[in-house]
Amino acid sequence: MSAGADVPQGTSLSVDPEVLGLVRFDAAGLVAVVIQDAAAGDVLGVAYMNEESLRLTIETGRVWYWSRSRQELWRKGDTSGDRQYARELRVDCDGDALLLRVDQEGRGNCHTGEWSCFARRIAHGPGAATSPAAAHR
Amino acid sequence: MSAGADVPQGTSLSVDPEVLGLVRFDAAGLVAVVIQDAAAGDVLGVAYMNEESLRLTIETGRVWYWSRSRQELWRKGDTSGDRQYARELRVDCDGDALLLRVDQEGRGNCHTGEWSCFARRIAHGPGAATSPAAAHR
Repeated sequence: MSAGADVPQGTSLSVDPEVLGLVRFDAAGLVAVVIQDAAAGDVLGVAYMNEESLRLTIETGRVWYWSRSRQELWRKGDTSGDRQYARELRVDCDGDALLLRVDQEGRGNCHTGEWSCFARRIAHGPGAATSPAAAHR
Repeated sequence: MSAGADVPQGTSLSVDPEVLGLVRFDAAGLVAVVIQDAAAGDVLGVAYMNEESLRLTIETGRVWYWSRSRQELWRKGDTSGDRQYARELRVDCDGDALLLRVDQEGRGNCHTGEWSCFARRIAHGPGAATSPAAAHR
């Protein structure tokens, strides 16, 4: 799904400094980020930010992560073209997880080419024949 | 939001053993779980499961977590009444995060009494005046 044509891309976010101060980075300087498609609500994956990638995301509106495997800052989509534009950032009750709502460009969030990293279903019960993520496949 | 009256509660889930085998527990024996409301798509929080809580969740349809602070198995809602019924369980591309879609009973997922643990907004940009989580408050 592309960003809506009526929504400016890569625009800096309005910040509540008091809430920003609640974010707790772990011993490695990272915080877990749950990535959600802003339009449909699909959960696209889990990634990590350090303080600098969080700041860059807020300042630029493009999404920056910290790559644990490559140990480097990483602006989502620079290689793949699958860019993300930050629309909303929330913090959880104990400050150690973020919820990032994005407009997803290109194929999707996952390096496998899937829309969501949660492409594989372990189990399901009654009332869950389909999921938002599955609906995109 | 209560579980739908037409959906059996606490029913064991149908499992794909091959996909279940992709789950990778960390050095502490845990895997991160993103909790999503199955009906509205709201992200309700992040919690952790060990192998036993994952098994119990699949077998009973009630949601079990591992409490890192109390270091014990924990069946969601036994104290608070805010029970969760598992509807779908997915694993991400590298096996170290789960997506759990639930029917949420009672006030919600958060121990603070909020519907979602992501009750506080750090920042927002154009096109994100409201979020699914905010819509419940």
